Amino acid sequence: MSERVKVFLDEEEIPKQWYNIQADLPHPLPPPLGKDGKPIGPDDLAPVFPMNLIEQEVSTERWIAIPEPVLEILALWRPSPLYRARRFEQALGTPAKIYYKHEGVSPPGSHKPNTSVAQAYYNKVFGIKRLTTETGAGQWGSALAFGCKLLGLECKVYMVRISFDQKPFRKFMMQTWGAECVASPSNHTKAGQAILEQMPDTPGSLGIAISEAIEDAVTSKDTRYSLGSVLNHVLMHQTVIGLEAKKQLEKIGVYPDVVVGCAGGGSNFAGLSFPFVCDKISGKDVKVVAVEPTACPTMTRAPYAYDTGDTAMMTPLLPMHSLGHTFVPPPIHAGGLRYHGMAPLVSHLLQEGLVEARGLHQLECYEAAVLWAHTEGFISAPETSHAIAATIREAKQAKEEGKEKTILMNWSGHGLMDLTGYEAYFAGKLKDYELPEEALQASMKSMEGFPKPPAL
Amino acid sequence: MSERVKVFLDEEEIPKQWYNIQADLPHPLPPPLGKDGKPIGPDDLAPVFPMNLIEQEVSTERWIAIPEPVLEILALWRPSPLYRARRFEQALGTPAKIYYKHEGVSPPGSHKPNTSVAQAYYNKVFGIKRLTTETGAGQWGSALAFGCKLLGLECKVYMVRISFDQKPFRKFMMQTWGAECVASPSNHTKAGQAILEQMPDTPGSLGIAISEAIEDAVTSKDTRYSLGSVLNHVLMHQTVIGLEAKKQLEKIGVYPDVVVGCAGGGSNFAGLSFPFVCDKISGKDVKVVAVEPTACPTMTRAPYAYDTGDTAMMTPLLPMHSLGHTFVPPPIHAGGLRYHGMAPLVSHLLQEGLVEARGLHQLECYEAAVLWAHTEGFISAPETSHAIAATIREAKQAKEEGKEKTILMNWSGHGLMDLTGYEAYFAGKLKDYELPEEALQASMKSMEGFPKPPAL
Repeated sequence: MSERVKVFLDEEEIPKQWYNIQADLPHPLPPPLGKDGKPIGPDDLAPVFPMNLIEQEVSTERWIAIPEPVLEILALWRPSPLYRARRFEQALGTPAKIYYKHEGVSPPGSHKPNTSVAQAYYNKVFGIKRLTTETGAGQWGSALAFGCKLLGLECKVYMVRISFDQKPFRKFMMQTWGAECVASPSNHTKAGQAILEQMPDTPGSLGIAISEAIEDAVTSKDTRYSLGSVLNHVLMHQTVIGLEAKKQLEKIGVYPDVVVGCAGGGSNFAGLSFPFVCDKISGKDVKVVAVEPTACPTMTRAPYAYDTGDTAMMTPLLPMHSLGHTFVPPPIHAGGLRYHGMAPLVSHLLQEGLVEARGLHQLECYEAAVLWAHTEGFISAPETSHAIAATIREAKQAKEEGKEKTILMNWSGHGLMDLTGYEAYFAGKLKDYELPEEALQASMKSMEGFPKPPAL
Repeated sequence: MSERVKVFLDEEEIPKQWYNIQADLPHPLPPPLGKDGKPIGPDDLAPVFPMNLIEQEVSTERWIAIPEPVLEILALWRPSPLYRARRFEQALGTPAKIYYKHEGVSPPGSHKPNTSVAQAYYNKVFGIKRLTTETGAGQWGSALAFGCKLLGLECKVYMVRISFDQKPFRKFMMQTWGAECVASPSNHTKAGQAILEQMPDTPGSLGIAISEAIEDAVTSKDTRYSLGSVLNHVLMHQTVIGLEAKKQLEKIGVYPDVVVGCAGGGSNFAGLSFPFVCDKISGKDVKVVAVEPTACPTMTRAPYAYDTGDTAMMTPLLPMHSLGHTFVPPPIHAGGLRYHGMAPLVSHLLQEGLVEARGLHQLECYEAAVLWAHTEGFISAPETSHAIAATIREAKQAKEEGKEKTILMNWSGHGLMDLTGYEAYFAGKLKDYELPEEALQASMKSMEGFPKPPAL
């Protein structure tokens, strides 16, 4: 055999602690605010989340131990393999070395269960019997269904109606893991009923589904809400990805020059990159790139502001890059990258200049994903294709500069449940969307009157 | 962490040779026969297969080296992990230890690419530019599309019409890997045209699709045919599964008491079990179980006979358990287990008493697969669910007998492309099919007049 393409870790090498970047931020993260503009405390969040997760949300401890029962479930697919994308490199003719972390090996097929299992565990320990959540394309909903089933919790998923109707397979997946999945807006909540009265034919949105899931959680017995991205503790649960990748690269004596991940809410990007951003804070020279679609340009075109996480303004105000909570994204195929906001931690690191953002069009991303399937073999999630396309840009730049750059990418999930996107791409039915300036200005109006985060 | 659940091999530990059980058979395999009842030679097969694969088909060498370029592609997902199914064991309350080989980690999600890559390679080396094949539910077609794309061959897949219409996602997968996929019967071949004239609304069958793919291969330039199971060389390519499993079990000091695999054409079953059958031939005490659906009872109810592999009788006569080449299987969801025949090598080992067969109903299999998803997390292919259900039976027997039996199972693929089957199961729409005796007698009529294989 010629040179190896995979680096495995032994099961015993799964990280035993999560990395909490809040311990190392040059400036602290601005707090979430209530409707009155005053910082909210743990008690304000208690109807929505269990106190043990609220403690994680605000913790500034650098390392937080991963509970044994969580490790035991993570061991069903972790440590995930680290790959060298040799065939892809060869096709690009680049001197760059491209490594990727393969998060598609989990039962639901993405990085999402890294946090769904942890959240289900903490809720269970806190005495909660049932979790609610929202899902767009279905990756998060199926991951939470999986996590709840393995820990013995009930699960109810509000799925954005257009996806519910067009992509029934994710719904079947959730059912197989015992979850209830309904189309949102639904008549199960007051928020849903109100929207259905006004717009009976609405395709729904993530913002609406979040409103419904939160309402259900705060009005039902022994029930809490679970979010698949954006929040600090969610991003922290994903750091097993980057911690493993570091260990795997160390085994072969490599440190990356560039770290790349796609970012919708920010969790897979954070999971891979935060352990490297930690080094960057200490002076290490590493470029960290978050990639989003030009159709939903949260990081590249939206302001850093205080905004709510949902349409019905049930969540606190979070300091984040936001297109405005009334933003309705165009129908691009990367359903996981269509959220109006970006995680406060990722937004904050952009402000600190520790992370760079890039916006890419979907045709370039599909082209990249097809090259990937033809060389590395695996079919990528449409979200992941954004990381691949950005990696190609980095690799081409390395070629132009004649540099032997090392790129590390998060292959956040497979696209076997998203093949209609590929079909549409091959049939020439897809087009690129540039968000018109007027649409951006209009949706940003929904944030008027909210306080502004402090300048660094 | 408590006891580990996975055993990884290093990439360097991928087997470098395939195991050819023909070297160790107590009695030699009866030869394929021509229409005249006389043994056929390599030249007779030359229009259909490249000579290097024909040589493998008839070889009695015990070990055959795996070419370097094949190993390099296999390394994209091999060695596959060996798992201990601890949570599943706990749910069953069995003293049995259950290990499984996870073949769902390949890009198409099943064991099939173990041979599609090898076949594409040998054809390429022989100067072939294009391969044709048939597919039922689509697992094999997508695996060959993948293998051809990575080796630079063209690929055309004749997909059984009912699957083509009902399961478009496998078709999109093949397209993503650059293959052409058409519904069979098609008007692209004379065999297809003839059937369409008689039965314009036929749902198609594997037998018909094989006839079309072979006709295309023998009438097109630089084209050969590729089969995903049944033949000796195909089964041999799958032995990497069992060879890896043996090495992985050796690392933890375990040898199985029972080896279980589902069997449609026989290749995943053979791939796991043949290296253990080899030990059994040498006197080792190991039980080897092949599992099929009661709806397509090739091993459990059909005679050991000479029959053709396809409906239009284009293939030679093969010595195998066969329901008759005109057999039309009922619409159970395990598309990969609906073939009318069983691999000559597996059929022969049944005759030798080295392998046992078991027929199971699909409801028992779905129930088993749901328990699997709720404990081990992974969603199984409907084919694989048959192996799981048989494993439960073995585990329950161990419980009754109070024995600490070790069971090794082939988890041949994931079911993420087959979720409609789960949906139908949960909706109570599935039923069990027992093949009526009259239907069996009727389809067996198609073998009348063919010679009989010699008694052992």
